[in-house]
Amino acid sequence: MKLKLLVAALPAVCLLAQTNPAAQAARAWRQQHERQVVDEFVALLSIPNIASDRENIRRNADLIVQMMEKRGIAARQVAAPGSNPVVFAEVRTPGAARTLVFYAHYDGQPLDPKEWTTPPFSPVLRSRSIEQDGQVIPLPAPGKPFDPESRLYARSASDDKANVEAILSAWDAIGAAGLKPRANIKFVFEGEEEAGSVNLEKILDANKQLFSGDVWLMCDGPVYQTRQQAIAFGARGIATVNMTIYGARRELHSGHYGNWAPNPAMMLARLLASMKDDNGRVLIDHFYDGIEPLTDSEKRALAEAPNIDADLIRELWLGGTEGAPEKLAELINLPSLNIRGMASSRVGAQASNVIPSTATASIDMRLVKGMDQHQTVARLVDYIRRQGYFVVDAEPTAAERMAHAKVARVTESRNGYNAVRTSMDLPISQDIIRTVESARGPTVKMPTEGGSVPLEMIERALGTRTIGIPIANHDNNQHSFNENLRIQNLWDGIELMAALLTM
Amino acid sequence: MKLKLLVAALPAVCLLAQTNPAAQAARAWRQQHERQVVDEFVALLSIPNIASDRENIRRNADLIVQMMEKRGIAARQVAAPGSNPVVFAEVRTPGAARTLVFYAHYDGQPLDPKEWTTPPFSPVLRSRSIEQDGQVIPLPAPGKPFDPESRLYARSASDDKANVEAILSAWDAIGAAGLKPRANIKFVFEGEEEAGSVNLEKILDANKQLFSGDVWLMCDGPVYQTRQQAIAFGARGIATVNMTIYGARRELHSGHYGNWAPNPAMMLARLLASMKDDNGRVLIDHFYDGIEPLTDSEKRALAEAPNIDADLIRELWLGGTEGAPEKLAELINLPSLNIRGMASSRVGAQASNVIPSTATASIDMRLVKGMDQHQTVARLVDYIRRQGYFVVDAEPTAAERMAHAKVARVTESRNGYNAVRTSMDLPISQDIIRTVESARGPTVKMPTEGGSVPLEMIERALGTRTIGIPIANHDNNQHSFNENLRIQNLWDGIELMAALLTM
Repeated sequence: MKLKLLVAALPAVCLLAQTNPAAQAARAWRQQHERQVVDEFVALLSIPNIASDRENIRRNADLIVQMMEKRGIAARQVAAPGSNPVVFAEVRTPGAARTLVFYAHYDGQPLDPKEWTTPPFSPVLRSRSIEQDGQVIPLPAPGKPFDPESRLYARSASDDKANVEAILSAWDAIGAAGLKPRANIKFVFEGEEEAGSVNLEKILDANKQLFSGDVWLMCDGPVYQTRQQAIAFGARGIATVNMTIYGARRELHSGHYGNWAPNPAMMLARLLASMKDDNGRVLIDHFYDGIEPLTDSEKRALAEAPNIDADLIRELWLGGTEGAPEKLAELINLPSLNIRGMASSRVGAQASNVIPSTATASIDMRLVKGMDQHQTVARLVDYIRRQGYFVVDAEPTAAERMAHAKVARVTESRNGYNAVRTSMDLPISQDIIRTVESARGPTVKMPTEGGSVPLEMIERALGTRTIGIPIANHDNNQHSFNENLRIQNLWDGIELMAALLTM
Repeated sequence: MKLKLLVAALPAVCLLAQTNPAAQAARAWRQQHERQVVDEFVALLSIPNIASDRENIRRNADLIVQMMEKRGIAARQVAAPGSNPVVFAEVRTPGAARTLVFYAHYDGQPLDPKEWTTPPFSPVLRSRSIEQDGQVIPLPAPGKPFDPESRLYARSASDDKANVEAILSAWDAIGAAGLKPRANIKFVFEGEEEAGSVNLEKILDANKQLFSGDVWLMCDGPVYQTRQQAIAFGARGIATVNMTIYGARRELHSGHYGNWAPNPAMMLARLLASMKDDNGRVLIDHFYDGIEPLTDSEKRALAEAPNIDADLIRELWLGGTEGAPEKLAELINLPSLNIRGMASSRVGAQASNVIPSTATASIDMRLVKGMDQHQTVARLVDYIRRQGYFVVDAEPTAAERMAHAKVARVTESRNGYNAVRTSMDLPISQDIIRTVESARGPTVKMPTEGGSVPLEMIERALGTRTIGIPIANHDNNQHSFNENLRIQNLWDGIELMAALLTM
């Protein structure tokens, strides 16, 4: 009775969309527990979580285990030699016809604290986003509602501790409403996703039974830019490459040697510039070979995805886009080659009149189904060779540098993986679409999300399917400084997880 | 008698070359005072001397005044509002037919201390260069000789405090030998050359009489790469430009937006790459227009300059040169366009999967006689516009960024100036060639040195000639980290200055 009244107070549009009883129960519960949810979340966000920081990673894992045990979920840490722990738990349901695995990760992207407006591991609430001149505000008193447009700022506020908090809060909510899962439920919270999940496959291989299920629900990434719920049936793969071009063995005075000594910054510029055409098409030979075409369902889903390009262009202050006129939703179903960063000598006040000695670029290539990460890197290396470069994978020797006019050091990061795409037509896919839409209204169904998640190794190790159920706002500054989560996205996420936990 | 014996102990090649009595006297005196000279030099090098560091610049100027007063030279500091002081002194010679002005500068290039092997303002002596695995060694005891191949490491050890020390030590040496100048002598030690001599012309304009002379001897830059004495009859001019290319207003996740959001690092690479052809020729329209051709004497001097390219290529670990097959000595008589530095987001361990928001390059253009610095920058800006860029000279607004697919911020540094070239055929030029060769043997006569010195403003303000008389070793890491001076170059410099002070 009380529940019904609370729901009746919500805007009509929400009422119309939300027919899922668990989601409705979650909303009612959340409205009574907003401060409690955020306090728990802030405590989790306050522990630094860069994957290489082993001591703090351990503190994160321990806290998550405590959070689960507090809820009566028996959690444990599973690791492989040298890995960060996966926090794992399983709740069996008698007579369950299937097993749902909820995956999130508790580690965050590396960062440079100097770039952050407030320290990354001291979460603050802002009235709006920093771009909207949002100011730091205190948390509302217990019992008072949060402004749904306010945002929590901290590393992993969105990517991906938000999902740990949403899943566990949803568990509270369904329990409080006397609802129960119909499937077996497993929780998998990884601790080194942002370091390329380098040990995940090893851990899964060693514990196949433990981690197996009918589907892994990948609770990572942002919702659609319209703030509509998205379902991602796959993710792009990734290969990351660092390349350094060599000039003279030391920086040279640009007056005494300019016009004569090769400039590695210019050589790098020429090499990078040659890799794509004006419209953003990658010119590396065979780059697009072997790509698996989209099915009719996938093409239809893409055609139905709202065109948000014009809004995004305004929001991001852009004068145009790279692959125009194709829209973003289409373009992320193609592979990409992106310069992540570039450095040579110094710029600005520290610049001096030198010819740099080296120039470095970091590149990521996003892969789609049908491409192999190692083959793609090999094609890039072949391409660099065809531009006249002698390519090495370690610091070149003096002899190598003297023997070749163009020397490039190209190294592949270990943290790559291939793309995965689950058919939208499978019964489990259709079930999930129905459940998500009953909680969150019409969804945007994406054959592939643009970001990369290590789906391939999960599917390979366990023979399971993977489907992405993101909750974070699209403008969360994920992977950059000033990462944040819009409070309404956390609320929506709790309702979504409640629906999925009881499907 | 003692002098003769000392000289007789030197290698025959030196004896043959050196017929100048003042230079001979300087050598004898130096051999008795090596530690005294270096101690004084180390004290001068220990004071930080970045032009923007006003307090330390003042301490440098004060110390140089003291060093001169100790020698009986009445020195004073001359400044314009807001300028660093020029240390000035004049020694009149009754009946002198001409006035020689010795110019050096006591400020040094900006630096990043993290790049230095030992702190830049804590001079150390090394047995050889760092590249030759030279180790830090103590100064020889007073009375013991320095290894002439050992090197002093400190900011401005070569550029350009070496010349202050060489000139004042030469003054000691000729005084000790009872020799006297035949010309009027003026000393001008500037304090903001590395900041573009932004106030020098103002100071000269306000003190024309004080600073005028028949020739300014510019004691800056390195000797020839064979270690032969060079005479530079001019210097390239310089124009420095910073350019920033803009992408989205914030860094974006390269998965969610890669292929769609413009990448400013790639745009910068394309723009820079388009500015030069494979052989290093600048492709900016009209870049080479109006250049004044070399005279027959200048062409002959260039043809006679030893070809040191093969040795240099080996020393610098190069596999080729930009303007091959033309040799270095020829190429520095052409203008150049050089990328000094390049930066966009992050590389290496701090790199993350983003599309950068901006990309910046710092460029210097070296100019030869007949080119105007502002016109050259205007031609560069025109070129950038023709590549489709909307060019601004301040941070572009959101509206400007949204109105144009390509936006570049291009700013010209204030510290540019044009090239100057003094005819080798003038009587004063011929006199100086004779004097220098009597002290240092056959010289390499360069129409233009590659580096830039503000000769133009000196000639314009005073109507004087300028000729370059460098002493530093060519491999001194000038303008970079680990700047150093080979001890033999300091000894040679003292002898050279003694000859010039008495010509």
